Amino acid sequence: MKRSLIDVTDLTVAEIEALIATALDIIADPGRYAHVCDGKKLATLFFEPSTRTRLSFEAAMYELGGHVLSVPGSAVSSAAKGESVADTAKIVSCYADIIAMRHPRDGAALVAAENASIPVINAGDGGHCHPTQTLTDLLTIRREKDRLDGLTLGLCGDLKYGRTVHSLINAMSRYAGTRFVLISPDELQVPGYVYQHLDEAGIPYEVTADLEGALPRLDVLYMTRIQRERFEDAAEYERLKDSYVLTPDKMRLGKPDMIVLHPLPRVNEISVAVDADPRAAYFRQALNGKYIRMALILKLLREAAADLPRRERPDAVTGRHVCRNARCISAVEQELPQVFYPLPGGGCRCKYCESDA
Amino acid sequence: MKRSLIDVTDLTVAEIEALIATALDIIADPGRYAHVCDGKKLATLFFEPSTRTRLSFEAAMYELGGHVLSVPGSAVSSAAKGESVADTAKIVSCYADIIAMRHPRDGAALVAAENASIPVINAGDGGHCHPTQTLTDLLTIRREKDRLDGLTLGLCGDLKYGRTVHSLINAMSRYAGTRFVLISPDELQVPGYVYQHLDEAGIPYEVTADLEGALPRLDVLYMTRIQRERFEDAAEYERLKDSYVLTPDKMRLGKPDMIVLHPLPRVNEISVAVDADPRAAYFRQALNGKYIRMALILKLLREAAADLPRRERPDAVTGRHVCRNARCISAVEQELPQVFYPLPGGGCRCKYCESDA
Amino acid sequence: MKRSLIDVTDLTVAEIEALIATALDIIADPGRYAHVCDGKKLATLFFEPSTRTRLSFEAAMYELGGHVLSVPGSAVSSAAKGESVADTAKIVSCYADIIAMRHPRDGAALVAAENASIPVINAGDGGHCHPTQTLTDLLTIRREKDRLDGLTLGLCGDLKYGRTVHSLINAMSRYAGTRFVLISPDELQVPGYVYQHLDEAGIPYEVTADLEGALPRLDVLYMTRIQRERFEDAAEYERLKDSYVLTPDKMRLGKPDMIVLHPLPRVNEISVAVDADPRAAYFRQALNGKYIRMALILKLLREAAADLPRRERPDAVTGRHVCRNARCISAVEQELPQVFYPLPGGGCRCKYCESDA
Repeated sequence: MKRSLIDVTDLTVAEIEALIATALDIIADPGRYAHVCDGKKLATLFFEPSTRTRLSFEAAMYELGGHVLSVPGSAVSSAAKGESVADTAKIVSCYADIIAMRHPRDGAALVAAENASIPVINAGDGGHCHPTQTLTDLLTIRREKDRLDGLTLGLCGDLKYGRTVHSLINAMSRYAGTRFVLISPDELQVPGYVYQHLDEAGIPYEVTADLEGALPRLDVLYMTRIQRERFEDAAEYERLKDSYVLTPDKMRLGKPDMIVLHPLPRVNEISVAVDADPRAAYFRQALNGKYIRMALILKLLREAAADLPRRERPDAVTGRHVCRNARCISAVEQELPQVFYPLPGGGCRCKYCESDA
Repeated sequence: MKRSLIDVTDLTVAEIEALIATALDIIADPGRYAHVCDGKKLATLFFEPSTRTRLSFEAAMYELGGHVLSVPGSAVSSAAKGESVADTAKIVSCYADIIAMRHPRDGAALVAAENASIPVINAGDGGHCHPTQTLTDLLTIRREKDRLDGLTLGLCGDLKYGRTVHSLINAMSRYAGTRFVLISPDELQVPGYVYQHLDEAGIPYEVTADLEGALPRLDVLYMTRIQRERFEDAAEYERLKDSYVLTPDKMRLGKPDMIVLHPLPRVNEISVAVDADPRAAYFRQALNGKYIRMALILKLLREAAADLPRRERPDAVTGRHVCRNARCISAVEQELPQVFYPLPGGGCRCKYCESDA
Repeated sequence: MKRSLIDVTDLTVAEIEALIATALDIIADPGRYAHVCDGKKLATLFFEPSTRTRLSFEAAMYELGGHVLSVPGSAVSSAAKGESVADTAKIVSCYADIIAMRHPRDGAALVAAENASIPVINAGDGGHCHPTQTLTDLLTIRREKDRLDGLTLGLCGDLKYGRTVHSLINAMSRYAGTRFVLISPDELQVPGYVYQHLDEAGIPYEVTADLEGALPRLDVLYMTRIQRERFEDAAEYERLKDSYVLTPDKMRLGKPDMIVLHPLPRVNEISVAVDADPRAAYFRQALNGKYIRMALILKLLREAAADLPRRERPDAVTGRHVCRNARCISAVEQELPQVFYPLPGGGCRCKYCESDA
């Protein structure tokens, strides 16, 4: 089993710095990397469609000189015949050198990584993790602000269901001097465990429903989409979706060197008229996504060639609990054992989806 | 913004001649072109499936040495999440060097071209334009007849809804000595603006419902499919679809050096028994489609590298009209302004779908 | 027309031996083959999804240095517009150098091969043939057992509908000393013509419903999936599907050098706990699938370049019969003539689906 990337916290701060340094070097001198993956094959296994993320990975592999085996959407997969994620990972290991996988189930990427003999990059597993988005965000902040420490980040929109937000909070918490401004309607605040994490780590943050009031204090404004598919109540969605729309008028309240990020695709939460503002960094962010993925593919292929040991996960218990997260891969994967990590305060956490049982 | 190809009339006659010359040179010496696009990436963004057109573009790019980022159908796109064509074009500009786009909406390719930072080739936008089909037709006529002027073209079948027919009439009207024979049932005649165009340009044409009677006079017979999806009334389709089926018997009425073209796919409008006739040029036409697309990709990438200015469009008015074409991209694209060109005789024309308002 | 591969019996034993020898040479020295198909294009035309088979072909082509034109599933094909398989084959011949085609209709690959000007590899045509699976099986047996003769093969599960089983019986029947043990519930025994073939050829076989009893005698155990889609009666499927599940307990009854094969994907007919047994060869089998496809692509492209004559099929009769197999391509393909081969004992057999009329 090779080193994979499931969650951004699988990487140390030093490793993230090294990835960013590689990405910056690729940007400075792409020709030097144009053939470093000659003859290598990336399989993009997308069990649900995400054209933007898939193309970003595929463009990255081509710019490294490699090939792509593309599985563009759920309809075109053997999954229809009931094949397990574990078996798919084993078989694709025969055909490719590295996998980028998107799957609708929480924890699916970990199951793939544990069964593949090649590195697996999590390109989004349900509502769980999407580490290459977070790496993209970090590279963008680094390029736009010239640093990752001492920044005040405003996170705006759907902070409850937005996995990119949780992951970015997690990653930025590791840099000195970070402050968060959490801007959302009451119904869409970050989950309790995020507050707990911030409190325990002693990271300063404020919670507000007022985007305009918060804007003047921000170095980075991270906008997110309010996703229709996260709502069980359509009327609730209709009521909230326009609450936090960024417009040129609101942009006037921001610092001259503030930047605006967005994981994209946007619907209407950033007015098209904002695109012309030089502080609108979200399309540059998409470009950075390609470069950080190039750095990541290169790192994992090099570690696989060197056969470095995979990082160990902590001791776990099996058989005494059943994961209650209906979206967890353990709810559907054939013969996958229930595995839990004990929590310090009692209770335990599912190994795959990391929800508490 | 780079030079794109939305409509075949974006190209001058001289530019078309140059494209044909490049295609003929590629055919004569393909090895000389086998690496001219090394390291370049074509994104084939197909928001509706069209396997033949997509494969033709992808084969063209491979034969130039480039890579392909493939988005094979609407189901596998971020469109499901509500992303605008404009945003998709901006993002794909981060990953690819040139885009070939098929979209079900009239005018979608123009919206993409105005937002992409790379060249966009319209691979079909609804019922509006399909310029690479017309370029394919022109290369085929040129190769089969050794000239493009002084030819009598018979256009047969669905002349009302067939965009390839309108585009070919437009393109061939620019060559001296062209005559048209418009062969269709009354219900499927070319639209009034085509007659108007021919009358104004003084191009000779005749209108007939009699394929057999017209055949002896033709240098080129262009057959088209009567498409089920263009009919609101299924019974009407059933009554008409077999009206203009080309058979070996009818072929006996044609000149010995007549050629038969068809944009393909055919259903039954050309009998399979006609395929063996050397005058049946429609499969050679498909092969020519690859070569002219190679020439076009090469031209646009070279112009993009030279950073040539994009051809200006005429001054337009906004805000006073709303496009009444339900299939126009302006009916669905987020925040896209309504833009119209004033017409000489009063009234105005939608910038995107070119229907009159 | 070029040499194609529709059925494994299109190949002589000597040709299969040569393919296996090429595959073994590729495995021993892959670098020597890394550019033998530079500039060549494989089109993977999958009219129904089969991700594993498609990726195996595409990986094979990339490891030979070639390009891939990918049509990943039925939704993304011109088939929706009513194009015939014959026309698709003619058109794709303009874009690619070789085709691998999967189609839901029996006989579709033969229709494609007869119309393409490039080689066609049948990657599965309905319930009819899947020759590269059989070649994969043969390479695996050869690598695992060091020989193909003198072996006792147990075939277990759905022997009625499983085309891979019928094809493997056919292929292994040509090696001296082969014995078969046919293990299935009564409802899913091999069809009568297979028994007839074995009897006529004098191949020893036994028929049993008892997997455990048969296990100790086997050199090779070939497990197959009981496919839900083959059953008209869902209750019957539910009753039978767990009947022949291979577990570690049952594995204890097998010889120490027995091997277990499976065409994959599996559902639950082999317990995941068996994977750790060194005799479980089914994932190694998937890897062999890539190598034998490399050997096959190479062979057919070389024969196409040398323009070797296509093997002749026997004289056939037309017009007097109609194929009664509802899944036959002749039931739907436009203008395809009904063609039959006379059988020695009277009656005749459809040229396309090989069912008796």
